[in-house]
Amino acid sequence: MSVTQPKGFRASGVAAGLKASGNPDVALVVNDGPDYTAAAVFTGNRVKAAPVLWSQQVLKGGIVRAVVLNSGGANACTGSQGFRDTHATAEHTATVLRGGANRMMIGPGDVAVCSTGLIGELLPMDKLLPGVNAAAKALAADGGPRAAEAIMTTDTVAKTSVAEREGWSVGGIAKGAGMLAPALATMLVVITTDASADNDTLDAALRAATRVTFDRIDADGCMSTNDTVLLMASGASNRQPTVEELTAAVTEVCHDLAQQLITDAEGATKHIAIEVQGAASEADAVQVGRTVAGNNLVKTAFFGNDPNWGRILAAVGTTSAAFEPDRIDVAINGVWICKGGAAAEDRNKVDLSGRDVTVTINLREGEMAATIWTTDLSHAYVHENSAYSS
Amino acid sequence: MSVTQPKGFRASGVAAGLKASGNPDVALVVNDGPDYTAAAVFTGNRVKAAPVLWSQQVLKGGIVRAVVLNSGGANACTGSQGFRDTHATAEHTATVLRGGANRMMIGPGDVAVCSTGLIGELLPMDKLLPGVNAAAKALAADGGPRAAEAIMTTDTVAKTSVAEREGWSVGGIAKGAGMLAPALATMLVVITTDASADNDTLDAALRAATRVTFDRIDADGCMSTNDTVLLMASGASNRQPTVEELTAAVTEVCHDLAQQLITDAEGATKHIAIEVQGAASEADAVQVGRTVAGNNLVKTAFFGNDPNWGRILAAVGTTSAAFEPDRIDVAINGVWICKGGAAAEDRNKVDLSGRDVTVTINLREGEMAATIWTTDLSHAYVHENSAYSS
Repeated sequence: MSVTQPKGFRASGVAAGLKASGNPDVALVVNDGPDYTAAAVFTGNRVKAAPVLWSQQVLKGGIVRAVVLNSGGANACTGSQGFRDTHATAEHTATVLRGGANRMMIGPGDVAVCSTGLIGELLPMDKLLPGVNAAAKALAADGGPRAAEAIMTTDTVAKTSVAEREGWSVGGIAKGAGMLAPALATMLVVITTDASADNDTLDAALRAATRVTFDRIDADGCMSTNDTVLLMASGASNRQPTVEELTAAVTEVCHDLAQQLITDAEGATKHIAIEVQGAASEADAVQVGRTVAGNNLVKTAFFGNDPNWGRILAAVGTTSAAFEPDRIDVAINGVWICKGGAAAEDRNKVDLSGRDVTVTINLREGEMAATIWTTDLSHAYVHENSAYSS
Repeated sequence: MSVTQPKGFRASGVAAGLKASGNPDVALVVNDGPDYTAAAVFTGNRVKAAPVLWSQQVLKGGIVRAVVLNSGGANACTGSQGFRDTHATAEHTATVLRGGANRMMIGPGDVAVCSTGLIGELLPMDKLLPGVNAAAKALAADGGPRAAEAIMTTDTVAKTSVAEREGWSVGGIAKGAGMLAPALATMLVVITTDASADNDTLDAALRAATRVTFDRIDADGCMSTNDTVLLMASGASNRQPTVEELTAAVTEVCHDLAQQLITDAEGATKHIAIEVQGAASEADAVQVGRTVAGNNLVKTAFFGNDPNWGRILAAVGTTSAAFEPDRIDVAINGVWICKGGAAAEDRNKVDLSGRDVTVTINLREGEMAATIWTTDLSHAYVHENSAYSS
């Protein structure tokens, strides 16, 4: 049930013709209250799509009553016309939701907008706006899964998740298959909860959750212009969890969605966890994990089922983390093939026949650790990304 | 004639059995003086191969009389035994060069060592040392091209270059086909000159030259453990160019060799120049160029002949360079498909059918510029790098 599992939310997904395939491409998630608090994190890319610039303004108001999402076009690098189009989408969405069977009290400043797809092209507004009408009509208390479908681009499966608690819950939908990188990346995520929480609590919970989940996956090191993770609270459960309880539930949903994203990353044949241990600081552990995860020679080696620990060490050597080259240990799937920076156990003992791979790097400098999840670099990745817009 | 074009140098390349293919794998370049001044730059990777650690010490002495190079094994991540092997190679080389027909005045501290090949395995010293004997016997005043052949790994062609001046010259050999990245990368380069120059002049000329040549190519963003660029001067021409004259000639050879390296990069089907203009500083221009050059989505787009300027803007957006997203212009092969951060000329006008591609990015913030040379990301890259050690 995803975003419609928590009480107080309705959602829908419809086909408006933005996608040449005719698949669903416009989604709507509305918060029926009684609360309308929200928090969000956005892409760290300085080239931000129009819907990101718009939604950042909406979030400053502290209230989000609806989010309208489209696939089939990112509305990024589209200049002032792109921003006017996003504004018009929010205006139209608010107008439509005030009428019909919905009768919501809503203005355009209460409507977040998310877009995903090809960069650099204007959205076909003559298709998008009628799509919003249809999505508003289709809003349903069990519509979450249809919204999840409508935001897919090169995703092969829709991503949804739920964390149930005593009397309240958190639900989420996500899309994202390429351009996945640190600091978020072509990723649209909507998370809902029927817990009652103020904006500051939601913001703290969301930032804590994304820091150890979406921020720690990296498929291809490429950061998108459109990433948005939006958390909305309806308060419909009449429960008020502590910030720790809320953080734990939001983190559970974010972790689940992040793992689904990396598993479905474009062209991946491996799901690789880079576990960095023995770091002097968490920042060091994250830096080492990200650098190894982003190294094309490491990624191609895993595509070839090659336990090439030398490439891993060469990648670690490009970081500024505290370590001594002759103290590092590296295990692949539990076999310590590198000890003290040199060959140790027989590389032939490493079984890479499965999809899941765990690389363990012990820097032997301290007690801190972090895990980054990534994928291999495959022929299919090259194919999919060289054919995307052509 | 490469490194043996300048007077005072002899070189050789022989097959010692380090490569399974039986191709040449041990090279020797000796300086017969009267000067023995030298300078070098090494990998910025903190995980340095044993021969790099050794050669750094040799360079501190200020005299290099010979450099012995091997392909077929990097001697990196090989612990203390690896360092002892490098030391033994230098000792053996000095001993051999003191005897036979060579009768050189040389100690191990005058012998630089370079290795390239797979990381993490000890060199077969029982093959390498007899190879040094054979290389010493084969030394010849026209041996430069054979040395260039003996240092090849996945290179498809040997790389040599010469810059002729009035009465003196600079010559060079290079290898390197993958792991090419900023701050040098799996690259061994030996440059010779018969000019007379002290160590400080050589160092200044070499650093100035590598900064704008080898440091500005990036095939796959991966920095090697073994990179070495060594410049040796014999003084045999009795000419003493100014530091500017020497820098210009060394830069000419470095630029030529760097272009040969990037053209021969593993699996490349495109030779791409990323020209950044209008930057507030040279550092900004270099950062933007490197970031775009290293972006897998940009690289796969060019493999697919797709002028995807949106991915270029998304890459620029991840830098800290001074720019405004709505002021950037981007041209591909001279067609300004992006103006002011949005679509401009028709993308169909861009002809990507050839091998050479020029991306021009105008940040419109100042007068500084820099060019980074890179390649596309192809199926062949994935294939070669997933099969390298298996």
